Formats: sequence, C-alpha cells, structure tokens
Amino acid sequence: MNTKTPKITTGPLPASRKIHIPGQIHDIRVPLREIAVTGEAPLAVYDSSGPYTDPAVTTDIAEGLAPQRGGWQIARGDVEAYEGRSVTAADNGFAEGARLTPEFPVRRRPLRAAGGRAVTQIAYARAGIVTPEMEFVAIRENHGRTEAWCAARDGEAFGADIPDLVTPEFVRAEIAAGRAIIPANINHRELEPVVIGRNFLVKINANIGNSAVTSSMEEEVEKMVWAIRWGADTVMDLSTGRNIHNIRDWILRNAPVPIGTVPLYQALEKVNGVAEDLSWEVFRDTLIEQAEQGVDYFTIHAGVRLHMIPMTADRVTGIVSRGGSIMAKWCLHHHRESFLYEHFEEICDICRAYDVSFSLGDGLRPGSIADANDAAQFAELETLGELTQIAWARDCQVMIEGPGHVPMHKIKANMDKQLEHCQGAPFYTLGPLTTDIAPGYDHITSAIGAAMIGWFGTAMLCYVTPKEHLGLPDRDDVKTGVITYKLAAHAADLAKGHPGARARDDALSRARFEFRWQDQFNLSLDPETATAMHDETLPKEAHKVA
Amino acid sequence: MNTKTPKITTGPLPASRKIHIPGQIHDIRVPLREIAVTGEAPLAVYDSSGPYTDPAVTTDIAEGLAPQRGGWQIARGDVEAYEGRSVTAADNGFAEGARLTPEFPVRRRPLRAAGGRAVTQIAYARAGIVTPEMEFVAIRENHGRTEAWCAARDGEAFGADIPDLVTPEFVRAEIAAGRAIIPANINHRELEPVVIGRNFLVKINANIGNSAVTSSMEEEVEKMVWAIRWGADTVMDLSTGRNIHNIRDWILRNAPVPIGTVPLYQALEKVNGVAEDLSWEVFRDTLIEQAEQGVDYFTIHAGVRLHMIPMTADRVTGIVSRGGSIMAKWCLHHHRESFLYEHFEEICDICRAYDVSFSLGDGLRPGSIADANDAAQFAELETLGELTQIAWARDCQVMIEGPGHVPMHKIKANMDKQLEHCQGAPFYTLGPLTTDIAPGYDHITSAIGAAMIGWFGTAMLCYVTPKEHLGLPDRDDVKTGVITYKLAAHAADLAKGHPGARARDDALSRARFEFRWQDQFNLSLDPETATAMHDETLPKEAHKVA
Repeated sequence: MNTKTPKITTGPLPASRKIHIPGQIHDIRVPLREIAVTGEAPLAVYDSSGPYTDPAVTTDIAEGLAPQRGGWQIARGDVEAYEGRSVTAADNGFAEGARLTPEFPVRRRPLRAAGGRAVTQIAYARAGIVTPEMEFVAIRENHGRTEAWCAARDGEAFGADIPDLVTPEFVRAEIAAGRAIIPANINHRELEPVVIGRNFLVKINANIGNSAVTSSMEEEVEKMVWAIRWGADTVMDLSTGRNIHNIRDWILRNAPVPIGTVPLYQALEKVNGVAEDLSWEVFRDTLIEQAEQGVDYFTIHAGVRLHMIPMTADRVTGIVSRGGSIMAKWCLHHHRESFLYEHFEEICDICRAYDVSFSLGDGLRPGSIADANDAAQFAELETLGELTQIAWARDCQVMIEGPGHVPMHKIKANMDKQLEHCQGAPFYTLGPLTTDIAPGYDHITSAIGAAMIGWFGTAMLCYVTPKEHLGLPDRDDVKTGVITYKLAAHAADLAKGHPGARARDDALSRARFEFRWQDQFNLSLDPETATAMHDETLPKEAHKVA
Repeated sequence: MNTKTPKITTGPLPASRKIHIPGQIHDIRVPLREIAVTGEAPLAVYDSSGPYTDPAVTTDIAEGLAPQRGGWQIARGDVEAYEGRSVTAADNGFAEGARLTPEFPVRRRPLRAAGGRAVTQIAYARAGIVTPEMEFVAIRENHGRTEAWCAARDGEAFGADIPDLVTPEFVRAEIAAGRAIIPANINHRELEPVVIGRNFLVKINANIGNSAVTSSMEEEVEKMVWAIRWGADTVMDLSTGRNIHNIRDWILRNAPVPIGTVPLYQALEKVNGVAEDLSWEVFRDTLIEQAEQGVDYFTIHAGVRLHMIPMTADRVTGIVSRGGSIMAKWCLHHHRESFLYEHFEEICDICRAYDVSFSLGDGLRPGSIADANDAAQFAELETLGELTQIAWARDCQVMIEGPGHVPMHKIKANMDKQLEHCQGAPFYTLGPLTTDIAPGYDHITSAIGAAMIGWFGTAMLCYVTPKEHLGLPDRDDVKTGVITYKLAAHAADLAKGHPGARARDDALSRARFEFRWQDQFNLSLDPETATAMHDETLPKEAHKVA
C-alpha cells in the first residue's frame, strides 16, 4: 500500500482544458473537459473531476469548494436556515485528543424545508419547475451541444427512450416520472449536479471510506478527488470506526459530486457495534445528522423483511450485504419487522426536508453465482418496489440497488424485474460479478456484468476494485476500478445507441489509424497508463494493429 | 519489461497435484489438476499446463517433451516417415553465427499421409473411428467424471447442444459434422489434444512470438510454458524477423498444447518484407516447412477477395489485420485474386496430409467500433463459409476467425452470421473489444465482448493483453491476458449451462463464506495474486463481503 503523505491531486489531464457552458434559463456554468486533437476540432467530454482539474481555481481543503450552488436553494424561497443538531462525541466514535479528526473549520447553519414543504427535485419537477439543477445536467449530458448530433444512431436500447438532445424539459419530465434522480441535498452547496436514469448516460460510483485504522481527513478527501479525477460520478463514503462525522464534513465540503452513505454503518458505531441495540431513535438521529451535513443519497436497507430471512438459509453464501446482515440480525433478535421498514414514512419525511435521495439497499443480494436470482433476492426487490411507491407519494427521489454476483444468463431478468416492480426507478448495481473464481480480478469479472446490465438499462454502476473480497483498495486499485467501470459504462452507452457516444471512440480510432500516438493517449480514459505502456517497449507494427 | 534471464517455470500450483485418468478404449492417460480443499473432496479442474506442473516429470527443453502421442499416428498405419524438406538459410531470415538460434538438437524424420490419404481427425470421424485424440478430449472435458453431473443445469445455450457427459462417440460425431476440431498435426507428438467447438468448454488462445529484437529460444519456450501454466489452451507463435524456423522447432518440441501460426508472416520474411513479391511457391514451401515441424493450425487469409478491398475505403481504420493488409496490397498490385484463394484446394491437400487445421483468417475484421459489422467484414465471412465447404470436402478441419472491435449490441449478429454462413464450424474470435477509448485496458474492453460472444457460441477466444495497441506484452501482461480470458471463458461456460461449470465457483464461494482463506486462494484462477492482495492489507470485514 502506498503510504506516502497524501496530498490533493490537482491539475488538468493531458491536452485538456476546462470549459464552461452557460445556462440559457438559469445563471449557471456547466463544466466540461475539452481535449485538443491534432488537425481536428477539440473533443468535449463529460467531466466529473470538479475544480481540481481547473488551473484557474485554487483549492484549499480547509476552505472547501466554492458553494456555487448555494444560491439556488435560497432563491426557491422554501428553505430555512436553523441552528442544527449539536455534534456529539458519539458522532465521532468518542475519538479524543490527537485521535480526533479536527472539525471542518467553517461552520454553516444547515438548511431545511420550511413549513414541511417538499424541497426535492421530484417535487419541483411535478410542479412543472425546471430547476437550475435540471438545466445543469441537461447541458452536461449533451457534452455542451445545443443541437442534436448529426451522426446516424444505432444501438439497442431495450425500451429506454433516449432523445437526440437532452433538454431541461426532458430532464424535468424524467424526474417527475421517477425515472431519473438528481441526488442533491440542499446542504451540499458545492455540488455540480448529476442525473441518474436509464435515459441518460450510464454513471459510475466509487466507494471510499476510512476504517478502524486511522486515516487523516486529507487522505479521505484525496481518495474522493482521485476517484472523480478518473471519472467517478458519485462517491460513497462507507467509513466505519472513529471520526466518521468530522471526516464526512471534510469530504462534503470538498466534493463536487454527490456523496452517498449507508447511515446504518454510523448508527451501528453509536451502539458500539451491537446490531441488536440499534433503535429507530439512534437511526433517526443519524439521518438528521447526515442530512444536515449535505449527504446526497442514503442507502436504506428497508426491504429486508422478517419473513424473507429464512429464505436465505439454504444459500451458499447467506447474507453478504453488510447492511442486510445487520438488519437480519436485528429482526431475528427482536422478532419483528425492522425499524427501517416500520418507520419508512418518517424516513421519507426527513429525506424530503433536505432532498436526500433514497438508494434502497439490496440487503439480500446474492454473494455467489449459486445464490443469484433466488427467492430471497426477488422477494426483497418486490418490497423495494412497494417502498418506491411510498417514497414517491412523499415527493422523494428513489433509486434501487441491485446485485452482486449473477451469471450472464441471469442478468437480464434482474433488470426486467427491477423495471417491473420498481416502475422505472433508476437501478444502481454492484457489478454484477459473472463468476466467483477470480479473486484479484473481480473488477473484470464484474465489468462484464456491469457493461451488460448497463446496456439493459441500469443507470449507475457501483465499481468493484481488484481488491474486492481480499483487502482494502489502495490508490492504484481505486484508479483501476474507476477506469474499468468508466469503460464498462461507456460500452453500455455505445450499445444503447446514445447519441454522440461514439465520438470519442471514432476520434481515438482515427488517431490510431494515422499513428498520431499523442492524440491516442490524450483521448484515452487513462493517458498516463497508455503512455507508460507505449514507452516501455519499442512500438512494433504487428502489435499495434487489431 | 522484465529482462532477467529467462528460465522455464515448473512446479505445481498451490495445493494442486497432477492426476491422470486412463482411457477405456485406448491406452491413454489424461492429465487433470486436483485442488485440495479443507473438509471437502478435492476439486478436479481442466489442466492445460502440461508436464511442467508435474513434479514427477523432469523436463529439459533441449530434449523436448516425451512424444506421448507418437505411437497413435503410427498405429493408424496410414502415415509414412520421409526425409523432409531441407532447412534453408531463408527459413531463419539468413541469421548467421551468434545471431542464429541453434537448431533443436534432436532431428526426427517428419510424417505425412501415405498414398494421398486423409490423416485428419475429421476423416477418421467420418469413417466412424474414435481416435485416441477423441477419447482423450472426452475425458478432459468431463474433468475426469464418468457419470453425468448430478446438479441441476440451467443456462441459455443459444442452440448449442451440450451433453450431460461428453462421450468419445459424441466427440466423434461433432468432429464428423465439422462442429468441432482437434488441432493435432501428426508431427506434433508431444501434444495433449484439445477439442474446440461450441458444444464443449470455451477455450482460449495466447499469442507469443519473437520480433526483430532478438530473443532466445529459451525465452520463447518460457513464454509458451508461462501462458499454458495460467490456462492458455492453445498458443499462436506470431514470430517475425530472424530465426523463425529454429525457434518454432524449440517451441513445438516443448509444447503440450496445439500451436498455431500465420504462415504468411514467415513467407513475407522470405521475400524481404515486400508483399508484392509473395508467390504461391514461396507460400506453399512455407506451409510444408511448418507442417513438417508439427504446427497444429494455420491462419489462412484466403477470404480477402479483390472486389472486397474497395469496401474498406470509407472505414475509419481501414484494414487492420496484418495478414489482411498484406494480401490486400498483393491483390491490388497484381490486380487479381490472391494466391491463397486461387490455390485453396492445394492448401487443403497439404493440410490433410499432416492434419493441420484451418483457422480461416478474418483479414477484413473491423479495427474500430465505427467499422464493426460492415459490408467488407460480412462479405469476407460469406467467403469463409464457401472455403469451409471446400475444406470439408477434402476432409480438413476448419475453424473461423472473427473480430476484433464490436460494440455490444452488434456482437450477437457476428455469431449468428458465422453459424449461418459457416454451417457450425467453430468460431475463434479476438475479443471483441467493446469500446476503443481505453488503451491500456483492452484486456478488459475485450473480455466483456469475449465473455458475451463465448456465451453466444464462440468456441475459442483469442486473448488480448493490456499492451494491445501500445507495445509488446511482457511476462506480467501475458499472465494478465490469460487470466482475464480464462475468467471470460468460464463466465461463458456458466451462462451456457455447462454441466459442472459451477463446481469451482461453488467450492470457492463456500470457502469465502466460511473464511477459509487458503482454500479461497487455492481455488482461484490466480492464487499468487489473490494471496498477495490479501496479505497487502489487514482484511476487513466490510470489504470482504459482496
């Protein structure tokens, strides 16, 4: 593992500059990356990396990013600033003295909905309002184009309805219908919004998180910056152990991408790791704590119901989701439905007051090829569909988490059942891994499944690194995982016939055919690796063609 | 690049021992690898690694492997030993003195068919004869089982007809129908036969080859041994430059797997790299040279016809197959059909006299997403179908090469058209790569396509290493390519519902669930990497579950 002192990685990628496209409805500036190409027009590509790759911006993690979105929520006139919950020692696992990660230096009063109103993107969309967030993602999805791509489209979209040009109104309609979400907590003012839905570009998530082993806030911020530099669209902070609260603050104040969490992990820390001691009160308190900080989406394992747990008894790998196994333990001990399920409407009320999106967790996902698509998994999926209806009725944004480990011939059934039970709410899957026999290469076993399920309609793919099942990913593993998932998501966009998706492939292929090596490197997902591999050996004609 | 002195890698993989299953019809011993598992029966797995992983065998590359198959051909009574062609200076690119790779120390008179007879596996199969080669592969495919796997089968085989238990008679029938091949030159006496066909386990090929940069015969033998250690089922020697003849001899005499070549590459060296100077005479001489050495399959680009070449004019990446571009240049210069096409029947006559299988090359395969499934590609595929009929009529074994670069939604059409035009002859594809934007990761962009097309029915997948398009693969790249393709082929076997394919996944998953770390490593495709990654960090519960 790389143990040298972390620092924040900044600076543009090779031959790239940051450009900004202004909004036409709202006063917004949408960042894109423009790659210079010899003898051709520069190529604009989607850019999730935030201000860190913009030489015009000086970043300081102790100040956080500029709250570029800060005014949007205020302008809507439906939020109020308030004192907020006091941070307790338990929030940071009772870390003290030198072991306590310092608080983020700037303290802001949190915002929440005023007068019980819904301040969610879906509420606005249903009211016919095109928000700045919606216009922002529309411009982003088009790579800055204002006219439809002229190239002929092909592809098989399996019922997805992908327009030639994404308009703000199209985004609004998709959000209103629940087919897409923009995870955008009103307290995450540093956010560059992202849309997640089947009719948009396939997104990827990278997981980070400290553990019982101490890690500094700078290290955690750098993990996030590093992941988005290579293309992560959202980042989940899966921290456990001490200092969770303070580190999350550092991450959020420096994050231009949506940040997701599994609040159950922190709640469990608050009860000293004893699942049976969890309660609605502790959980509720944790939700508010994290919502005030600005977490954009919560994984909530409310679909694990008491009667489903025996369905996992004959599995090869039982319950492998950490959240799922915590809740199963709780349910069995108390012999009742979980507090997540019983209090789901109250959870919705919290989410709608901050616009935290749901990521309904698949606590019973299969952990092996043997357990794929079994009764427990699909029973939970049906419940997730019911919960989706409840959340939608309260104007909450929802996506649904999916497996896991699934052989290729069983992948499509996952997508089809998800669409059926969850009425088009975006699907967010981990892989799936298509075989269990290659630990050390599970970024690849899962990229196969991820590309396929992305093609079939999954909106966001949760990355898997080479260390999956084996250990903690280091910096190189995170990069390998992100690049692997970017290529899988892009392969899915190509197969869906996304307009313009082929532009980068074609530009790179032209460069390759004309032996414009530097252009080939610059246009690739990982210019550093491509250049290094090329420089390692003398290029030889026979090996350069394929 | 790793430049330390090469040596041959020997010794078993962790917790593994070599076992041999005797034949019931013939006096044969079929090697398998048995992995010990704590508290369970050992797991027998397919083993392509040859005697190098058998501690009971001492190997010496200057002696070559024992000619275990030497008696089988003789016993059939239809071959004759003869003096053979004299090696010329041109065969080794006029290398002299210290630059000349020494001849392999042991010289044997080559065998050929006596009296114009067909000594091919397909000829025997059509005559109702179950050869030792056929029984050998039947036992291998079953992993030594003699009874059908009792577990329920699922899977979607897209019309493949996969039996519960492979019998020698089933193999015979498949070979007779042209749906499978056993590449087994009668002069490759060191061979452990392999079957390639849609109704058998999906196989993978690794490419090796020296280049203008000098490399020793020991290095080349080690590349082959290294590739089969990790699971390559066949190896193609794509050498160019000097010493081609002698190095190939060293490889063949030490190769337990089928060796394929592109004879055109050596023929081109003989005419100093000037494509226009190629002739049928030079090519014919090269075929006989290589057939006498024991090459098991030849890539022959006879499908590139004159009228197809203009179809590539508007492509983004033109003709990227090296063989295809050589023949296109020749055809355009001479303005006539290629000598490969015009003399195809004579090529068949050579192949049937030694049982060299055809691998009909796809010289017009697409080199980019933009060019996938175009008129040139499919026109050539139709011609390959016609050539298949001609080869079959002469009792030759045939497989068909396929792309290349193909987005996911266009992959299945390749398989369907191949089945249609080539009447079930095995398909052998390179990848395909599902996007062009990730140089440095093309083992992954292509593993996605490879797993899918393997599922759809491709019989053998040609590996792609991380260095594809960038440089020469080193030892680590070869291993990464092989493991990546093994996992893709296995994912395909799972999805096809191959009986018993899940046994290894299930054993590994049980080990994972019970935290039997050592078993998990031992059962994995790459125990070394899994162990190293695990040891790198403290294992942490949250990261071990998925």
